[in-house]
Amino acid sequence: MISSQEALEIILANALPFGEERIPFLEATGRILKESIYADRDFPPFNRVMMDGIALAYQRVADGQTQFYIENIQAAGSPQRTLENPHNAIEVMTGAILPEGTDTVIPYEKIELLDGVATLHEGKVTPNQHVHFQGTDRTKNDELIPKNTKITPVEMGLLATVGIKEVLVSKVPKTLVLSTGDELVEVDQIPAQHEIRRSNVYTLMSLLAQVHIKSDEQHLPDNKPLLKKKIKQYLNTYDCILCSGAVSKGKYDFLPEVFDELGVQQHFHKVKQRPGKPFWFGSKGSCSIFAFPGNPVSTFVGALYYFSAWYTKGLGITPKETKAVLTEDVIFKPELTYFLQVKLKSNSGSLEATPIRGNGSGDLANLALADAFLILPANQEKFNKGTLYPLVQYR
Amino acid sequence: MISSQEALEIILANALPFGEERIPFLEATGRILKESIYADRDFPPFNRVMMDGIALAYQRVADGQTQFYIENIQAAGSPQRTLENPHNAIEVMTGAILPEGTDTVIPYEKIELLDGVATLHEGKVTPNQHVHFQGTDRTKNDELIPKNTKITPVEMGLLATVGIKEVLVSKVPKTLVLSTGDELVEVDQIPAQHEIRRSNVYTLMSLLAQVHIKSDEQHLPDNKPLLKKKIKQYLNTYDCILCSGAVSKGKYDFLPEVFDELGVQQHFHKVKQRPGKPFWFGSKGSCSIFAFPGNPVSTFVGALYYFSAWYTKGLGITPKETKAVLTEDVIFKPELTYFLQVKLKSNSGSLEATPIRGNGSGDLANLALADAFLILPANQEKFNKGTLYPLVQYR
Repeated sequence: MISSQEALEIILANALPFGEERIPFLEATGRILKESIYADRDFPPFNRVMMDGIALAYQRVADGQTQFYIENIQAAGSPQRTLENPHNAIEVMTGAILPEGTDTVIPYEKIELLDGVATLHEGKVTPNQHVHFQGTDRTKNDELIPKNTKITPVEMGLLATVGIKEVLVSKVPKTLVLSTGDELVEVDQIPAQHEIRRSNVYTLMSLLAQVHIKSDEQHLPDNKPLLKKKIKQYLNTYDCILCSGAVSKGKYDFLPEVFDELGVQQHFHKVKQRPGKPFWFGSKGSCSIFAFPGNPVSTFVGALYYFSAWYTKGLGITPKETKAVLTEDVIFKPELTYFLQVKLKSNSGSLEATPIRGNGSGDLANLALADAFLILPANQEKFNKGTLYPLVQYR
Repeated sequence: MISSQEALEIILANALPFGEERIPFLEATGRILKESIYADRDFPPFNRVMMDGIALAYQRVADGQTQFYIENIQAAGSPQRTLENPHNAIEVMTGAILPEGTDTVIPYEKIELLDGVATLHEGKVTPNQHVHFQGTDRTKNDELIPKNTKITPVEMGLLATVGIKEVLVSKVPKTLVLSTGDELVEVDQIPAQHEIRRSNVYTLMSLLAQVHIKSDEQHLPDNKPLLKKKIKQYLNTYDCILCSGAVSKGKYDFLPEVFDELGVQQHFHKVKQRPGKPFWFGSKGSCSIFAFPGNPVSTFVGALYYFSAWYTKGLGITPKETKAVLTEDVIFKPELTYFLQVKLKSNSGSLEATPIRGNGSGDLANLALADAFLILPANQEKFNKGTLYPLVQYR
């Protein structure tokens, strides 16, 4: 059996770039940019008025002039005006281009306007004040957003500003979520006493939707010939299959043999961790298969930790590692990486993790009380209050 | 002029619940639950086998019996079998109902199976081991998810388990994003020297999409009669309008007078903050209007801070307050709340905020270098390295 760290390394070694596609920029929030975005013009593209008021030549103010005849108006969106008489001023609006012949803006708050003449209030005027000069933020052809940036609302504004209507982003893998197990019935059915409703597929689909993957889902009974026939098709259709169930030692846990018979390369089966030990990972061609044990906490933590790492690498980004401080001593003796359910709290700028113990891998309800899994290493038995550990967070 | 804190209080006082709607549960990720979800059965609903192996009566092991004839198989998804002879055992699969007459599971790893007889390995057997007994996680009718919970993949799994195909969630406000300003051209146009492309609307739409609001957008020129005519319609159509531009002192900043003439109640105009001082907020009937100044950083921080607070309250949830530690001394003298752009870094479990100074409210490009705004209070001039301040985060 391999360690959780080895499992992660094998999975990452099997994560290849998903390729690229050009999509309408309005659909790009949350996607990963696959081209650098450059300034198409200077930022700002012209000497831009920053306050509503008047524009004049600073030298006149320095020379002691306090009254200025308003000879014109420069609105935002109008072509540049020219100050005809250097002793005059032009009324200017925020966002307008600064008129030719002027270099300084005096806001309305600092002048008296009467009969077309502006009288300056007393007080200091700074040359070039309230003008955002062309190119002071960025110069034409400067890189504004590097490749492999996750697109947030800020990047959306920048894409719009430079006129990128369609943007090159990472593709996402075509993904199938597959449940097995004859004890499962559909959400709208009433289960018999020995049955339960399907839930892992919906947890996984929701997790995938959060990272912009619209997945398909299927359910297959514990029937080996049928599993083999269907999975053969899926391997040709999908880039990724997330399975839940049928990977342990049970008489009807057919998946590992089915994968083997279909020529899927097994990279590992079983990981020294709790929960989720019977996790199976393999690939065939461009299809990667994560087969998680069917207990809900096992499937969930497996997808959260291993699938997310694989996905992130395929997108071409490096995830931020988050750590939290354990608020209680924890004893865990088995030589397994322990994914401990915790509730998170931000306290004085530091993230605190309090264990929320449930009844193990089958206890779905307990997940609703927690926010994350703290990752406690296998080579230790006692985990001290006040120590930092990495975590995978879902809330 | 009111303080940022007063502005926030007025906005929150004007945030009413958005109402409720029932939607397919598969579309509910990220939405706010408006009903409590209860267990429809015990969790687990039956004594559930947790390991693949054999089930037997513990008393036989206590009595020293080490060999058990396998009289049947209990698969997951099959109705409950009964152990006919109490000296025998039944093969059981993970997820199966525990057979009648048995109380303990011995996993395959701890037995030798030969010719239909299981011989136990030496070692301790604990009564009731590897059985997840009915009702040990939750009892029928227990609350599983309280009302006003944000639905994550975990809640999706629980909704599926209890058979909720349609779920009651908070409605989201029907929202319009409205830009004004004659200097603006569309994303696919080439701007003249004095023009720029529309970007704030796309930033806002992206921000709204992240919180599950599919907004509409419009652009209106600096034409008062047209503004009045169109906004009159919008007031009857939308629950919320986010405007960018036309709220300052400029000659074409028509919005405040248009709102006044349309009977919109102004709650405030101008807030002691930087950036975003000329922010205007009002309401008419069930429509709330956030009119932000048009500079991109002003609009963005206004929506992130004020709109988000209003939205969160309307949904019925309390946002988590996050704070970060300032990593450098900052001097800011004006008596204004200062929204300082910062880059965040998690360091030893604590969140650190490093200022990323740009060229003010017009500097959209600088936002791409930062992750958040640290909120520095107005009644202070010096902000010391190592101090904690609240923040609004966008990345």
